[in-house]
Amino acid sequence: MKIWLNGMIQDIAGIDATDRGFLLADGLFETLAVQDGVPLFLDRHVARLTASAATLRIPFERPMEDIRSACMITLRENDLTEGPASLRLTLTRGSGPRGLALPKDPSPTFMVTANLASTPAHKPMRLMIPRGRRNQASPTANLKTLAYIDQVLAKQEALDAGFDDALMRNTRGDIACASAANFFCWHQDRLLTPPLSDGVLPGITRQLVLEIAAELGWDAGERTLTPGMITEMQGAFLTNALIGLTPISAIGETNLPTGPRLEELHEKYSARQAEAAGHHR
Amino acid sequence: MKIWLNGMIQDIAGIDATDRGFLLADGLFETLAVQDGVPLFLDRHVARLTASAATLRIPFERPMEDIRSACMITLRENDLTEGPASLRLTLTRGSGPRGLALPKDPSPTFMVTANLASTPAHKPMRLMIPRGRRNQASPTANLKTLAYIDQVLAKQEALDAGFDDALMRNTRGDIACASAANFFCWHQDRLLTPPLSDGVLPGITRQLVLEIAAELGWDAGERTLTPGMITEMQGAFLTNALIGLTPISAIGETNLPTGPRLEELHEKYSARQAEAAGHHR
Repeated sequence: MKIWLNGMIQDIAGIDATDRGFLLADGLFETLAVQDGVPLFLDRHVARLTASAATLRIPFERPMEDIRSACMITLRENDLTEGPASLRLTLTRGSGPRGLALPKDPSPTFMVTANLASTPAHKPMRLMIPRGRRNQASPTANLKTLAYIDQVLAKQEALDAGFDDALMRNTRGDIACASAANFFCWHQDRLLTPPLSDGVLPGITRQLVLEIAAELGWDAGERTLTPGMITEMQGAFLTNALIGLTPISAIGETNLPTGPRLEELHEKYSARQAEAAGHHR
Repeated sequence: MKIWLNGMIQDIAGIDATDRGFLLADGLFETLAVQDGVPLFLDRHVARLTASAATLRIPFERPMEDIRSACMITLRENDLTEGPASLRLTLTRGSGPRGLALPKDPSPTFMVTANLASTPAHKPMRLMIPRGRRNQASPTANLKTLAYIDQVLAKQEALDAGFDDALMRNTRGDIACASAANFFCWHQDRLLTPPLSDGVLPGITRQLVLEIAAELGWDAGERTLTPGMITEMQGAFLTNALIGLTPISAIGETNLPTGPRLEELHEKYSARQAEAAGHHR
């Protein structure tokens, strides 16, 4: 595996032990789907990364074309220019002196890595509500920071119990999201997803689904969802860049129908993906 | 700067880009005070690291004497065998395939780094209550994981406002801890610190203070502390391995007295440190 690190293709053993991304999770990342060498919705991912970096005060002024070029080089160097693949962009505050205070003159680390992926199967997933809660009252609740240990534990708790993923509540007890995906459901004929204030990421696929639902003229939007609503849900699905829209067949002991409208949503989303892939061919 | 990484002294650029510590904050650390080449309370720090690793299911079976030796070598290689210094032990789950699920056969990363330190000045600190909350409902609330980004932001918010550190509340609104230190106060003639269930680390210095208070026969223990109690506090201080016991002179707009008993506590703590330093000389 080759990585693109601060402008150079190199071997994986290249991160400084003093990098604050490694020492303090002081950084951000993006995960993108790739089809035949084309990173999908790269502009949206870079826009989110740029906005999040500004919130964390990590300098990030790399031109879009440099980022696209870094992605292309990384895919080529790893022989991933055909079929489905994934890319990860990682941005950290770089090295600094000991302690938490921000370094005066930061030199951020920007890394691009690529992995083989399979076409999403969209096999229905069974979710479990884990013990741990998501912190909606954190200043990083809406940022894709490197601090993923709680999600790692939530996912593993679900896997250990024979489920496919975790459906995390926030500390108020409301439904937030899966370990690495946004949550949508149909409830009283409305398509709903938790608002950002409930402690979820502004997912790129989440946003696309909301846009498509608006185009279709559906009654759709953000609403706080409680565990008590699960038995009333007419269907539910998860979204992220890699799994696309994946139906949920059960949450805990409650089985859920697929929902007849998922197929229509999925077709529109696939069309958007194809358009995004064609645009940069 | 030289680091000790998985048994070898090497240059700082040695962490794999696929290390889950770097990618997902999937790891733990310890920070220790060092006096004249002797790591203080190393046995307690290693015991906490070992227990936390078991909770996270990161294999860690390195013998105590190997760890002590790694610390000594790291201090020597960095010319830090005289005067005050600090050590950091970092343990991660190591590299793994893409995704959150735990790797089947993990190969953990264990790193020891050393830094120059100054003798703690115990200069009274002014604290500010930041916007972000600490998540007492997280499975890692009592573990010193690598996920420190929220504490970085809390600290910086306080520094930007002209304070020395942040005093974080949990999502219930109760007082938890500073960005990297436990909180103690005197209230109605009792010495109090928040219980672990309020989302704080089981600090080594925190434990030593509770032990010393018990030896002295003081009325001391764990209790949930609310921001409303701040104006009633008869004194307060922060504890961690590097700052020892440092008095708090103000929380927000409320000035606090030093508390006459801090001096006595501090003497006992210094004696414990000297004993710990002498024990391994």
